[in-house]
Amino acid sequence: MPQKITAVILAAGKGTRMKSGLPKVMHRIAGLPLIDHVLDKVEKLGIGEIVTIVGHGREIVSKHIDKRSEILVQEKQLGTGHALLQAAPMLEDDGVILVMSGDQPLLSSETLRSLIAYHQQSGASATVLTAVMDNPFGYGRVVKEKGIFLGIIEEKDVGQEQKKISEINTGTYCFQGSSLKSALNKITPQNAQGEYYLTDVFKILISEGQRVETITTADSLEALGINDRVQLAAAEEILYDRIRKYWMTEGVTMINPSSIFIDTQVKLSRDVFIYPFTLIKGNSSIGEGAQLGPGTTLIDCICESSCQIENSVVREAKIGANCLVGPFAYLRPGTVLGKGVKVGDFVEIKNSQIGEGTKVPHLSYIGDSIVGKEVNVGAGTITCNYDGKNKYQTIIGDKTFVGSNTNFIAPVKIGQDAVIGAGSTITKDVPDKALAIERSQQKNVENWQRAKDK
Amino acid sequence: MPQKITAVILAAGKGTRMKSGLPKVMHRIAGLPLIDHVLDKVEKLGIGEIVTIVGHGREIVSKHIDKRSEILVQEKQLGTGHALLQAAPMLEDDGVILVMSGDQPLLSSETLRSLIAYHQQSGASATVLTAVMDNPFGYGRVVKEKGIFLGIIEEKDVGQEQKKISEINTGTYCFQGSSLKSALNKITPQNAQGEYYLTDVFKILISEGQRVETITTADSLEALGINDRVQLAAAEEILYDRIRKYWMTEGVTMINPSSIFIDTQVKLSRDVFIYPFTLIKGNSSIGEGAQLGPGTTLIDCICESSCQIENSVVREAKIGANCLVGPFAYLRPGTVLGKGVKVGDFVEIKNSQIGEGTKVPHLSYIGDSIVGKEVNVGAGTITCNYDGKNKYQTIIGDKTFVGSNTNFIAPVKIGQDAVIGAGSTITKDVPDKALAIERSQQKNVENWQRAKDK
Amino acid sequence: MPQKITAVILAAGKGTRMKSGLPKVMHRIAGLPLIDHVLDKVEKLGIGEIVTIVGHGREIVSKHIDKRSEILVQEKQLGTGHALLQAAPMLEDDGVILVMSGDQPLLSSETLRSLIAYHQQSGASATVLTAVMDNPFGYGRVVKEKGIFLGIIEEKDVGQEQKKISEINTGTYCFQGSSLKSALNKITPQNAQGEYYLTDVFKILISEGQRVETITTADSLEALGINDRVQLAAAEEILYDRIRKYWMTEGVTMINPSSIFIDTQVKLSRDVFIYPFTLIKGNSSIGEGAQLGPGTTLIDCICESSCQIENSVVREAKIGANCLVGPFAYLRPGTVLGKGVKVGDFVEIKNSQIGEGTKVPHLSYIGDSIVGKEVNVGAGTITCNYDGKNKYQTIIGDKTFVGSNTNFIAPVKIGQDAVIGAGSTITKDVPDKALAIERSQQKNVENWQRAKDK
Repeated sequence: MPQKITAVILAAGKGTRMKSGLPKVMHRIAGLPLIDHVLDKVEKLGIGEIVTIVGHGREIVSKHIDKRSEILVQEKQLGTGHALLQAAPMLEDDGVILVMSGDQPLLSSETLRSLIAYHQQSGASATVLTAVMDNPFGYGRVVKEKGIFLGIIEEKDVGQEQKKISEINTGTYCFQGSSLKSALNKITPQNAQGEYYLTDVFKILISEGQRVETITTADSLEALGINDRVQLAAAEEILYDRIRKYWMTEGVTMINPSSIFIDTQVKLSRDVFIYPFTLIKGNSSIGEGAQLGPGTTLIDCICESSCQIENSVVREAKIGANCLVGPFAYLRPGTVLGKGVKVGDFVEIKNSQIGEGTKVPHLSYIGDSIVGKEVNVGAGTITCNYDGKNKYQTIIGDKTFVGSNTNFIAPVKIGQDAVIGAGSTITKDVPDKALAIERSQQKNVENWQRAKDK
Repeated sequence: MPQKITAVILAAGKGTRMKSGLPKVMHRIAGLPLIDHVLDKVEKLGIGEIVTIVGHGREIVSKHIDKRSEILVQEKQLGTGHALLQAAPMLEDDGVILVMSGDQPLLSSETLRSLIAYHQQSGASATVLTAVMDNPFGYGRVVKEKGIFLGIIEEKDVGQEQKKISEINTGTYCFQGSSLKSALNKITPQNAQGEYYLTDVFKILISEGQRVETITTADSLEALGINDRVQLAAAEEILYDRIRKYWMTEGVTMINPSSIFIDTQVKLSRDVFIYPFTLIKGNSSIGEGAQLGPGTTLIDCICESSCQIENSVVREAKIGANCLVGPFAYLRPGTVLGKGVKVGDFVEIKNSQIGEGTKVPHLSYIGDSIVGKEVNVGAGTITCNYDGKNKYQTIIGDKTFVGSNTNFIAPVKIGQDAVIGAGSTITKDVPDKALAIERSQQKNVENWQRAKDK
Repeated sequence: MPQKITAVILAAGKGTRMKSGLPKVMHRIAGLPLIDHVLDKVEKLGIGEIVTIVGHGREIVSKHIDKRSEILVQEKQLGTGHALLQAAPMLEDDGVILVMSGDQPLLSSETLRSLIAYHQQSGASATVLTAVMDNPFGYGRVVKEKGIFLGIIEEKDVGQEQKKISEINTGTYCFQGSSLKSALNKITPQNAQGEYYLTDVFKILISEGQRVETITTADSLEALGINDRVQLAAAEEILYDRIRKYWMTEGVTMINPSSIFIDTQVKLSRDVFIYPFTLIKGNSSIGEGAQLGPGTTLIDCICESSCQIENSVVREAKIGANCLVGPFAYLRPGTVLGKGVKVGDFVEIKNSQIGEGTKVPHLSYIGDSIVGKEVNVGAGTITCNYDGKNKYQTIIGDKTFVGSNTNFIAPVKIGQDAVIGAGSTITKDVPDKALAIERSQQKNVENWQRAKDK
């Protein structure tokens, strides 16, 4: 029977240097909180149990994690050793404990899998995941003699000779359950900060003659932890870059990839073409041959094949195949565009269905409406869906022609093949094939004395 | 009499790793397909003849190249040697053959000229253009002994010792016509892929005791070939960077140059000032002292001196001197702005001439119109140029004042010095100096019970 | 009594390679002219006197500097030595003279302070601020023997052996007054350019047996001078990067910091969140928890806490707490939004006060207006503030409901709790609680023959 593996994620820290009201692990990169990136990687391992230790801002963190992990609370922030101690009762003596930080979003499942496999094969009491850094300043150094692990020295305790050590502690470890529990109970807060340090566990294990192994990750970026917003931005940039490279190798063209930001959950297709200054966020999916940007933000959108969206903002909307959107369109939640719809410049659409082949080319607001197929909506058309208290629906039939600067006072229903005269305020329903018009006579007054001439 | 020089461009490949329906050489960088960048450089050499070998997607490639090159078709994709063999009947025995790839857009005319000159001076049978790479992985290595060229070894065949060779084959060559033709006829597809490799020619020439020379390009970036979208984006970034540096040394100021994209064919002037997030594309030319951006896209535009365009999209339009455009304006094809015109926010203009000093400050659509000088167009003005079937013209005379939310039902002609009352729908022509108004009486109903109070 | 310290800033050069009509020191980076960055640093030293030598474009430069410095004019551009000679009459024999260039905006106050302190402690006749460059090409090299300063050699005179010298002259110096004045009077224009070189002063001092010391700045970027627009852009990028890092360590989150540009004078607060493609310029200040961008430009704005502004342009406006602005809004000078105001898409506001909780959600122009609290302004509403000659005011009372496509012909005053019917042009004042409407009857004409069917 295989050993039970338990992952413990340390997510109790405040992150003082973030200078934020938000708990550190809730800061987002590439569309997801740090803790989600870590949980995503751990879940892929398919191990027995995941435990997260929360402390600072624990209500927010616990609520967000929900059922993805067991939650344990560290009431007082007495150090990483004390944090891990909270999980001791849950850990099996003959199990393997994977310990990791909730603020290391770049660590990969592959590296975690290698760490566990190496630990199990070697039979060591503990295994430290290490990385080799060009500039190890600030990291705990891994001290070895003839290749044998002796301990971890924190930056502040590092001597002149040890400064040159380039192998550093990533803060991710595997332990044998019994060894960890025994050692955790022996660490003390006899230090300047009065905290229980997790790394003291290694001193104890070594002093007891137990064996500690190390395994080095090939990509030292994986060790990057987030302690301030500069590191947050740096980690996010690395993650966005990985996402860009992935999609480009899958057949997506990007003009100036470094100005294009694609969130972790987004799905793209072959021959998608993305111009600069474009953000694709949330649970968006983009169909083959779509052209997006420049200057476009898409959030939680479904864009079907060959649609084109430029200089626009689109939220929770569905864009049909071959639609043309923008420049300067704003599509809000509940917008559903059929195939080949044109939504042009300075048009807002909200909570409305627009039928196949319909055109809303300019300067319009369509809200809470059902618009048929092949309708032509003139510039300046406004659905007056709000009376100051409630919102009402406008329905427009197929092939109807709406003149410019029309107001539809909802609720109102316009038939098919109807014509609305420009400048009309439509308060009553209009039958199929009818002309509706609300207009006075044009008067020309000759030789008018203008304001500027007075 | 000088030797005839024939350039053969290999452009038959599919580019499988592009994962695209488009033939590889038709992918664009900095505004032009890859094949155009190569043709531009070859045309500058002023040599006798240019031949392009097409294969994959040949209809598209041939149609695009049109008369810029002879076109030969490689029916089956049997390798680069087989591709070049297609051109053999056209090559003169005592001529020089310049062979190059259609997917190397960064190669310069100067380098090609050096290659040809060196080849002709040395009298070698063939000359290989090489480059020195920090990381030669993936490239064919140039094997030499005591400086004498011995052959090219592909990455897959490279031994441990040869991995260290940093001089690589760029894939660009000069040949004596007779030597090339003779060797091409001797290469065989006896290899794992069953293809005819062009580089086998060098083995044959060396084995026959012929002399092959090399010349090394100073800028190894020139050797960059495009095999996938990551490389496409990288080459484009290098090209855009060269263009930026060129224009900055010519007196253009850019804020954050790396977010400004200027296509190959664009012409700028001294003291042009460009803000971030700006794209200038196609055959655009920009006059002295113009200020462009931020957040602006210009495509095929002529912008005269000292005009200012911010946060706008402009296509196939002519912008007069001292015009102010944007933020959030959309100028479409056929727009011609006279001097000192103001086109403000949320304004679309299409296929219209706007006279000197006229103002269209906000929220308007002007289509298929001729607007005179010093006209004031109120917010919300719309030319209703479309009746669902045809498009019609609106003409507005000099110094006319158009009130807000006016509709012009085209065809309609407004005289000079006229006044249009706000909110009018104008269906009939208006004489010079007349006031035109279409409006009912305003009624005030006191103590109205509002919807929200019901 | 401490020595009097006089700073002399050399700002007379034309900057030929800038290819500009503007004097070099007036080119801006990160929102300020180069000369302002230098003056800012010198003023922080709190020294006795600041003198600026102007020449090229002296009217513009002098007018800009105004009272921040004494101004001396170099009539003819005869070299840096000649420029400094203009200041000689003002320099005290026993004072310290700090000489610096007006085109080195990255030099820090700390470095200048170290230079002066070192100079005063060492008692040398002159002290040269130096830097160590990986690539010293183009800079004057500092020649020393056994650590003793011997002189400065310009690039063009540098011998093969001296090319390897990596310590370069930054162009910033301290002098004893008497030594400087004496040496300046001895330099001659006996060289190819016929100019008086300031660096000849060191030859003279050394030949007279006087001691010249050097001090090296830790950050070689400080030595960056601006000679062309490529260097201008590079220096600006470094400065923007410093500003970004500063604000991130102060608790600001930035998505893709490299696409966010914050000018020197801007003030941010904790938990401000900035999306890509955003510029914050001039004297702007941003309150805690504000969310800005993407695609947003703010110039001279006050944004209070927790306001959100996306894809908008805002100039000289005040945005209250919890306001929502954009996407695609344009707020112009004189706009003052109360708390919790919503200004939506395609809305321009100019010189207007908008009361707490009021909504202007779409497609409107509000100019020269006072709008009360909790007003609802329908889409397409336009204040007709201009009659072609003068501008007039619109006043709208609290809780009034304005229907869509309304025109207010200013001057006009609407009471509280009033209702304006959609599509009305309002020319007369409306009392409190009244309904105002300007509209004809809607006519439906059945079986209308449409244009497209004719």
